[in-house]
Amino acid sequence: MALASQQSQTEDLRLVMRRLGEAARAAAARLALASNETKNRALTAAAKAIRANAGKILAANAADMEGAGKRGLSAAMLDRLMLDSKRIEAMAAGLEAVAELPDPIGTVLKEWTRPNGLKIARVRVPLGVIGIIYESRPNVTADAAGLCLKSGNAAILRGGSESFESSNAIAECMLEGLRAGGLPEACVQMVPTRAREAVGIMLQMSDVIDVIIPRGGRSLIERVTAESKIPVIKHLEGICHVYVSNTADPEMARKIVFNSKMRRTGVCGAAETLLVADAAAKTILPLIIDDLAKAGCEVRGDAATQKLDKRVVPATEADWDTEYLDAIISVKVVKDVDEAIAHINKHGSHHTESIVTSDAAEAEKFLTNIDSGILLHNASTQFADGGEFGMGAEIGISTGKLHARGPVGAEQLTSYKYVVRGSGQVRP
Amino acid sequence: MALASQQSQTEDLRLVMRRLGEAARAAAARLALASNETKNRALTAAAKAIRANAGKILAANAADMEGAGKRGLSAAMLDRLMLDSKRIEAMAAGLEAVAELPDPIGTVLKEWTRPNGLKIARVRVPLGVIGIIYESRPNVTADAAGLCLKSGNAAILRGGSESFESSNAIAECMLEGLRAGGLPEACVQMVPTRAREAVGIMLQMSDVIDVIIPRGGRSLIERVTAESKIPVIKHLEGICHVYVSNTADPEMARKIVFNSKMRRTGVCGAAETLLVADAAAKTILPLIIDDLAKAGCEVRGDAATQKLDKRVVPATEADWDTEYLDAIISVKVVKDVDEAIAHINKHGSHHTESIVTSDAAEAEKFLTNIDSGILLHNASTQFADGGEFGMGAEIGISTGKLHARGPVGAEQLTSYKYVVRGSGQVRP
Repeated sequence: MALASQQSQTEDLRLVMRRLGEAARAAAARLALASNETKNRALTAAAKAIRANAGKILAANAADMEGAGKRGLSAAMLDRLMLDSKRIEAMAAGLEAVAELPDPIGTVLKEWTRPNGLKIARVRVPLGVIGIIYESRPNVTADAAGLCLKSGNAAILRGGSESFESSNAIAECMLEGLRAGGLPEACVQMVPTRAREAVGIMLQMSDVIDVIIPRGGRSLIERVTAESKIPVIKHLEGICHVYVSNTADPEMARKIVFNSKMRRTGVCGAAETLLVADAAAKTILPLIIDDLAKAGCEVRGDAATQKLDKRVVPATEADWDTEYLDAIISVKVVKDVDEAIAHINKHGSHHTESIVTSDAAEAEKFLTNIDSGILLHNASTQFADGGEFGMGAEIGISTGKLHARGPVGAEQLTSYKYVVRGSGQVRP
Repeated sequence: MALASQQSQTEDLRLVMRRLGEAARAAAARLALASNETKNRALTAAAKAIRANAGKILAANAADMEGAGKRGLSAAMLDRLMLDSKRIEAMAAGLEAVAELPDPIGTVLKEWTRPNGLKIARVRVPLGVIGIIYESRPNVTADAAGLCLKSGNAAILRGGSESFESSNAIAECMLEGLRAGGLPEACVQMVPTRAREAVGIMLQMSDVIDVIIPRGGRSLIERVTAESKIPVIKHLEGICHVYVSNTADPEMARKIVFNSKMRRTGVCGAAETLLVADAAAKTILPLIIDDLAKAGCEVRGDAATQKLDKRVVPATEADWDTEYLDAIISVKVVKDVDEAIAHINKHGSHHTESIVTSDAAEAEKFLTNIDSGILLHNASTQFADGGEFGMGAEIGISTGKLHARGPVGAEQLTSYKYVVRGSGQVRP
């Protein structure tokens, strides 16, 4: 009996998810044709609704926080779950910023005429239906829904179960926006259950969902990638490097390394490993280590680095492959830029790397020969961010090479189609 | 004992595939940096080698054909497997045509400067390692290897087992080309066994293969998609439509429908369903049916179409969802362009559709509201081809929306990275 009842519950859930998917598909067809004005009206009305309903959102969040506290969530997870008036205002302002972006849809990306007179245009169109699976960070609900809406895609959102009430309160405001824009409510849908099984069902719905974007830690992304029958835009870890050349300006190197590591240690663009050219190890590196150690950063070094400062602890092999997301840095002295490039291509995660050098040829070698999404010369790795790139907002930094690489903004949530205009041409 | 031996064989195969993958990864890193001149030298030398070794290739093909004949392959499959001097010359000429294409790699796709002075460039780079899985069409070996090479990607090729000898003989010529260009031989590798298990192992190698492109029929593509842990660029079926409006020029409509269906019936861009506006059904449609029937095409029509000509046989519901790849067409009379659009979005495969009309507004509606990769106005669906688009060569027509849509040429086999140039900027 219990088994039968469980099976029937799974069947019910399948049906619920199926209806959600079909509603999204139908809404996406309408949203694909919506004007920029319509989409912006929905976005700004949603922002207004978030401000007007701040009280309700905070109450829902308080309920979530209470539940999470009872379940013994870590302080870091509680901090991500927590909303306050500042974070609510940031969500509303974020939606308004997305509204101000140019409409990516309908843009002619390329146009040419063939010798037979056919006029071919590659035109930007939405992807269709995007499934977003995220952890208990309720603000992702507004951020992701806003970017999907602007890029003409219907969104199916599945947030962490601890943020269920908060995310739903925010989604209600998105619906108010959609109604104000005269758009179907199914443009933004939350999975209406905490049941973990819903994710598994969602990942099989390749006929109604075009792409899955997981946002969260490694285990979430690995689970989604392993199970999904739908293409995934991945945002894996950032094992980011800074390489300081012997020709680096010492003050610039100190500033860039310190900012890359310490501005915020918990972001994917934070530097995790510092590589320093042999010749610079005795001149610049001691100053850098002193800066970091004084700020409370643990420095794990190779043998050469350990000799420079007593505060340096030994690095193990595992350190070169570790994303700390904390005030810890691994440091290695290398022969030259070639050794730095080889180290990064071996140990990096293809995310973001920076070289500090005044040698232009050396910089070009670094920028060209490393296979990462973002490569910087004389700038901090912490610029790895859609906002800093001028994209307005981002849903994450893709570490994959297919479809989107680096910051994923509204433009990256699109596809294209070919429109061919003729005058009766047939193919010989 | 038998089981242990089988397990050990599987282990051996895994090891072979692992080495293949690692060699490809290393070769890809070098190929990514190769100049256009180097790649072109390899391509033209490979073309020369194919011509010089035509005798060897034909002998290998004769062995394949004999084996395939014994296994009772269908006439259509034998035709695809068969090589002759004309097909060998086409392969060589194809490689030379690819050499003449502009180098897609290194192109700056977009460039902008941020208010803080950071100069950001989006630069085109190769994908890395591409796995191509195809049926027993040995010419795909040269076509696919050539496009991968031009786009800076290492290729791992797995052809159908019946074409094993032919494909290897062609791959040998590609290696001659690589040696002539001074490029690593592992830029183009054939899976060195007929064992079916090799495909399963290949589809798990997500750490060394960046994308899988299956080329072949529905069952191959479905198997690859179901099993692959690597992103797949899919080339599914083409249920292509022609819609003839009541404002269509009758002679143009006849020409376009006839060409769309009958020029070649076995290609994915061949029309499978004809939709005709109510008002045109009695004037233009009888002429179109007569053209098709006289050329030996079976016409399957709805009730309205059946009334027009005795040669029309009844269409069933299944016909609207069928890719015939044969001299058969399904015909339906619809009220207007809206009904045509709804039919195509419901029954089409998002491949290629054409409208014949002299009403510009109606054409725009069709081009905008249908969610297919290629949409044509007053032109034959048989233009759905990379060569006809001016791409030089193609590896297929993608029916997916992620990464590449429509014809997949050298440009579509690339990714990009961001190169950011600063002067000491740190993030506030």
